[in-house]
Amino acid sequence: MPTFDTFLTEQRPRFIDDLKTLVAQPSVAATGQGMIETAGLVQQRLERIGATVQQIPTGGAPIIYAEIGSGSRTLLIYNHYDVQPPDPIDLWTTPPFEPSLRDAKVYARGVSDNKGDLSCRLHAIEAWQKTIGPLPLKIKWVIEGEEEIGSPHLAAFAQQYAATLQADGCLWETGGKNEDERMTLTMGLKGIQYLELRVRGGERDLHSGYAAIAPSAVWRLIWALNTLKDLNDEILIDHYYDHVRAPNEAELAMLKAMPFDEAKRLAALGIERFINDEHGLDVLKRLYYGPTVTICGIQSGYTGEGMKTVLPNTAFAKIDCRLVPDLTPEICLSLLRAHLDRRGFGDVEIVPLNGEHPATSAVDAPIVAACQAAVREVYGHEPVLIPLSAGSGPMYPLTTAFGIPTVMAGVTYPGSRAHAPDENIRLDDYFEGIQFIRKLIEMFARV
Amino acid sequence: MPTFDTFLTEQRPRFIDDLKTLVAQPSVAATGQGMIETAGLVQQRLERIGATVQQIPTGGAPIIYAEIGSGSRTLLIYNHYDVQPPDPIDLWTTPPFEPSLRDAKVYARGVSDNKGDLSCRLHAIEAWQKTIGPLPLKIKWVIEGEEEIGSPHLAAFAQQYAATLQADGCLWETGGKNEDERMTLTMGLKGIQYLELRVRGGERDLHSGYAAIAPSAVWRLIWALNTLKDLNDEILIDHYYDHVRAPNEAELAMLKAMPFDEAKRLAALGIERFINDEHGLDVLKRLYYGPTVTICGIQSGYTGEGMKTVLPNTAFAKIDCRLVPDLTPEICLSLLRAHLDRRGFGDVEIVPLNGEHPATSAVDAPIVAACQAAVREVYGHEPVLIPLSAGSGPMYPLTTAFGIPTVMAGVTYPGSRAHAPDENIRLDDYFEGIQFIRKLIEMFARV
Repeated sequence: MPTFDTFLTEQRPRFIDDLKTLVAQPSVAATGQGMIETAGLVQQRLERIGATVQQIPTGGAPIIYAEIGSGSRTLLIYNHYDVQPPDPIDLWTTPPFEPSLRDAKVYARGVSDNKGDLSCRLHAIEAWQKTIGPLPLKIKWVIEGEEEIGSPHLAAFAQQYAATLQADGCLWETGGKNEDERMTLTMGLKGIQYLELRVRGGERDLHSGYAAIAPSAVWRLIWALNTLKDLNDEILIDHYYDHVRAPNEAELAMLKAMPFDEAKRLAALGIERFINDEHGLDVLKRLYYGPTVTICGIQSGYTGEGMKTVLPNTAFAKIDCRLVPDLTPEICLSLLRAHLDRRGFGDVEIVPLNGEHPATSAVDAPIVAACQAAVREVYGHEPVLIPLSAGSGPMYPLTTAFGIPTVMAGVTYPGSRAHAPDENIRLDDYFEGIQFIRKLIEMFARV
Repeated sequence: MPTFDTFLTEQRPRFIDDLKTLVAQPSVAATGQGMIETAGLVQQRLERIGATVQQIPTGGAPIIYAEIGSGSRTLLIYNHYDVQPPDPIDLWTTPPFEPSLRDAKVYARGVSDNKGDLSCRLHAIEAWQKTIGPLPLKIKWVIEGEEEIGSPHLAAFAQQYAATLQADGCLWETGGKNEDERMTLTMGLKGIQYLELRVRGGERDLHSGYAAIAPSAVWRLIWALNTLKDLNDEILIDHYYDHVRAPNEAELAMLKAMPFDEAKRLAALGIERFINDEHGLDVLKRLYYGPTVTICGIQSGYTGEGMKTVLPNTAFAKIDCRLVPDLTPEICLSLLRAHLDRRGFGDVEIVPLNGEHPATSAVDAPIVAACQAAVREVYGHEPVLIPLSAGSGPMYPLTTAFGIPTVMAGVTYPGSRAHAPDENIRLDDYFEGIQFIRKLIEMFARV
C-alpha cells in the first residue's frame, strides 16, 4: 500500500483529469442545462469510492444523498453540483466549459463554486481508502443542484430527512485562504431578507409642472426610506435591535484575535473610511455581528442623459437586509411593515424576494476544533476564525436548525472569481485541500 | 375689396396648403435637419406679406427678425420655426413630415408647436392687409430656430437688440383652448432650475455584505434629498420661501375667477387627491404660485429583475425646481448649495442642467385687455386667465427683462399632442385663430 502522499503524487494527473471532466460538464441551474448529466457524473464519482448513493427527486434538479464509512462520529458534508450561468462569455479568456490549465490554475465555470471542493473531497476519501484503509467515521453527503437559484427544495428535503441527516458536525461547501494566504474557517452565515419597496402614485406619469399639486411616488419612497436608517447608519426600524444579540465572550475573543490591517482593508474595498469613521474592533463587530439595511438599487422616472420634466408615478428600491442572530426573515419583514404603517406609509408596498435565516455555530464545537487542528498540521499556521460570513447559503435549514455545528473550509482564494468570468482555483490549493480533508477526517474521528 | 370673412373663405384651401408646406419641411433643432431651408421658407412667407426681414446669425440656427406695419403701438411677437424630433416614428398614424388632413385636423410634427400659430399669424396679417388695409400698429417679430433645444442664443440676441425690441406688449408663441373649450390667456411662465444631485462613494461597487462597514452613496443621497422637502410637501431649503412673493390682490382675484372642477381635474391627472388633500383656491395657489422641488428621476445600483446584492458606489437624482417670482435659477442653486453644506452634505454634487427665470405680466396691461376683448368678440366667452404656466420658455430674457407685458394665446387644444406622435391642430381653431389675431390687432392698436 503506497503512502497517502505517494498516492497523491502518482494520481495527480488523473485527479486533474477528473476535475476537468466534472467542470467541463455544464450544469447551469438557472437554465437547467446539463443538470441530469451532471447528477449522473457525481453519482458515478461517489460510487467509485464505495458510497451508497441516492438521487432524490425534488421537482427541480435532484438532490444527491450519499453515505460512506462508519464510526462513532458522523460528519455531514454539503456541496452543490450546479453552477452560475457563464455570462458574459466574451470576458472569458478560454471558454467557460472547456477547462484550461494555465499558471498552475484550472479555469472553468464552477471550478471554484463549487465543483473544485466537491472533487477535492472525493479524491481525499479515495486516497484515504487506498492508502490508510476504511474511513474512521461516517460521512453523510448532501449535494444539491439548485444552490445558485436559491435552494428552493433544500429546506423541504431537510425537514423530510431530518432523522437521516443527524450528524456531529458539518463541513460546508467551500472556503479557502484570505489575502494573506491564511486559511479561514467560517462558522456561520448572516441571514438575508431581500425585498423591494414599491410606491405607486397616480395612474400615469405627469408633466412635472403638475408636481405643484399632484403627490409624488418617489418623494413618498424617499421619505419612507429615510425613516429606516439615520445619518450615523443606525437602523431605525422599530425594535430591530431588540432581536440582535451582542457577540458573547468567545465570539468577542475571536474578533480580537482576528488579523485586521485597516489600511489594507480600506484599500481593498476602495473606500476612504469605514462607516462612522470607526476603527478596529468596532469595525469588526459591525462587519460580523451588525445587521444591515442596504439599498442595492433604486429607480424612478427619467434616468437618461439630460432633462425630462416628468413626475413619475412609480418608484421602487431594492433592499438587502443582512440578518444576524436572532433576526429572522420573518421578524425583519414584520417589523418593517409595522414600522412603515406606524408612520403612515401604508402605501409603501413590501415585496419579499428571498429570505434566509442567519446560521451560526458554537466556537467550541468539535468540528471547529478538528478543522483548526487540521489547518495547523497541513498549512502550518493558525486559521483565521470568521464568525459569520456576509455571503449567503442554505445553511440554516440543513444544519443550524438541527443544531449541527458547521464550518466552511475549502480550496478557493481571493482571486477565484466565483460567479465571474475566468473563475479558477490554484492546483496547489486543490492538493493541499486533499491533505486538509485527510487530517480533518483523522481529527474529527478522534475529538 | 372683399370682406375679411369672405377672403378667409376664398383663401381657405390655399391657407391650408401654406400650412402643410411649412410643416412638411423638417426643422429639427436637436439634429439640425432642415434648419436653413425652413428659415428660408419663413423668410419668404414674411416677405410675401410685405415685412422687412433679416436672418440674424447666432452660431446656431439663425434668428429671423421681421418688422411690418406702423402706428403708435408696437406689438412684439415671438414664435419659433424649429420642432421636436419626430421619434418614436412608429407611433405616428401617418409620417410626421407628411402632413395629413383627417377629421378636420392637420397632423404633422410641429403643427401645434409652433408652426400652426406662426402660419396663422402670417395669414391673419395677410388677410388684414388684403381686406382692411395697412396695419394700424407696428409689429416686431422674433422667430427663433432653437426653442426646442433651450434657446441657447436668444438671451444674447435680446441683449444685443434690446433697443430694437422695445414694444408695448408681446404675443407669445402659442396658447389655446382648455378642456372646456374655453380660450386661455396665459400671462407668464414659471421659471425652472433643472439639476442633478450626484453622490459618489468608494472606487467601485461592492458586494452588499460590505455595507456593514462601507459608506453608501445612495443612502447619502436619500438623506440629502430628505432634507429638501417634508411629508407635507413643504420645501425645506433654507430661505427658499423668503424669495417667494405671495400673489397680489389682482392675481388672487384672477385665481378666484378661474373655473376649477376638482373632480374633473383629478380625473384628468389620474390622481385621487391633491397634495395635502387641499381643495379649491389652495390648490390653484400651489399650481400657479407655488414653487416646486420635484424628483424627475433617481437611479442607483441594480434596477433589473430579481436580486443583485450590491452596494452601489454612485447615485444620482434629477431635480426640477419650478420657480415663481422672485426665485431665480441663481438664487435656487445658491440656496440649495448652502442648505446642503450647512447639513454636512458637501459631498453631494449639484450639476445645473438648465435654468430659466420666471416671467410674469401685470394683469392690467394693455396687451392683456386687448386679448381679453378679442377673445370675447371672436369666441363669445370670457377667456380663462392663467397667471403662470408651468411650461417653460425663453420669455424672461426677451420680454420680462425689458418690462414688456406678454400674453400666450394660440390655436392649440388639449388634444394637440405637442412633442408626441400624432401632433395636430384642428382647422376650426386655426381659422378662429386668424379672426383672433385680426381682433387683437384692432383692439391693441386702440387701447
